[in-house]
Amino acid sequence: MGQTAILERLKGLGIELPEPVAPVGAYVPYKRIGNTIWTSGMIPLKAGKLLHEGRAGAEVTLEEAQECAKLATINALSWLSFATNGFQSVKGVVRMNGYVASAEGFFDQAKVLNAASEVLVEVFGPDGKHTRVAVGVPMLPLNAPVELDFVFELE
Amino acid sequence: MGQTAILERLKGLGIELPEPVAPVGAYVPYKRIGNTIWTSGMIPLKAGKLLHEGRAGAEVTLEEAQECAKLATINALSWLSFATNGFQSVKGVVRMNGYVASAEGFFDQAKVLNAASEVLVEVFGPDGKHTRVAVGVPMLPLNAPVELDFVFELE
Amino acid sequence: MGQTAILERLKGLGIELPEPVAPVGAYVPYKRIGNTIWTSGMIPLKAGKLLHEGRAGAEVTLEEAQECAKLATINALSWLSFATNGFQSVKGVVRMNGYVASAEGFFDQAKVLNAASEVLVEVFGPDGKHTRVAVGVPMLPLNAPVELDFVFELE
Repeated sequence: MGQTAILERLKGLGIELPEPVAPVGAYVPYKRIGNTIWTSGMIPLKAGKLLHEGRAGAEVTLEEAQECAKLATINALSWLSFATNGFQSVKGVVRMNGYVASAEGFFDQAKVLNAASEVLVEVFGPDGKHTRVAVGVPMLPLNAPVELDFVFELE
Repeated sequence: MGQTAILERLKGLGIELPEPVAPVGAYVPYKRIGNTIWTSGMIPLKAGKLLHEGRAGAEVTLEEAQECAKLATINALSWLSFATNGFQSVKGVVRMNGYVASAEGFFDQAKVLNAASEVLVEVFGPDGKHTRVAVGVPMLPLNAPVELDFVFELE
Repeated sequence: MGQTAILERLKGLGIELPEPVAPVGAYVPYKRIGNTIWTSGMIPLKAGKLLHEGRAGAEVTLEEAQECAKLATINALSWLSFATNGFQSVKGVVRMNGYVASAEGFFDQAKVLNAASEVLVEVFGPDGKHTRVAVGVPMLPLNAPVELDFVFELE
């Protein structure tokens, strides 16, 4: 996908990328290595606040966890846009690792992450198809329901 | 290792690669990036069913978790074979990340993953030696006991 | 950063790298792929013994978990030094994945990992700034409080 197509798709999906917010701590939100960009773990922060807090299957419903996965993805895209001056030379997505804070007996981590995977395919087309690892964890930093990290590919 | 040697070793080990089954969800089982192939998280599915369900140290014994680790590795090899037209130009293994669904007090994640690591060395020889990350988690998608992802290197 | 600068910074920080100890199991502590070096998961072993055991927020305090994160980082640096003949051609750090064994209600995984991230920046300068993924888990191999893996970049 070219830069223009990506920007048009975002617009068509009604996705407005927020100003990217630098992480608190001694690390950076993304790094380029060869023709890839690796992001740090993204959590569903909106204007500095978590969209939801807690574990899927307990404090947070499946639907709310899916909203969180989508928001974390949008936060990653906002850094990708920043890193590439508006998606210049972005080819697609190589990897998403997805950690879902999960209550006892919650096994639908894949359904939570589908919400994120679908955004990537909607935005990047076939090149948005990526490999994925879905893991259930007891808790995440700040009590976030979802944390996602990405490897994007450049041309 | 060359392609022929890999195929002979698989045969010698009595490992028959199953038809690879595409993941359910908006992602792909593997992706090539540069001279590496990254797989998605592989779980111990056999003919569409989990070999065992539950956590090591509770519903699943150490030995059963090891069988699961071996099967997840074979599932990854079946995708690697598909991706490379029967292991053409496959050089070896760079990485295995292993998540083990673990009951309270179970600390033998490394023993579980050794079963997978040993398969890789048996199949690829010294080039099958890989880096590894072993993590205990409370649960995995579909209640799988083990989930493994791999980075393979091509020549 | 050049090799001499890295060695001087380590000395200035009073960090003495231990003899690297090979992992037990069918895997290797690091592997080079292209111009990167990936490490296996590093735990806070000192002379073959864990510095602390258990979960942050329960058996292990935040401060003790931070000491563990620092020690696991030093263990990784000792392998990096071994792999590069004393940091020859080391450019910086691309990634740290950090798993923190966490008790119910412990959400300060980022604070634990900051202790590790800060070492990397102290040793490598601006090129030590890395992407990071912080995850809470119920337990880790051998009951380690922290496990870290790294991707380093070579020139």
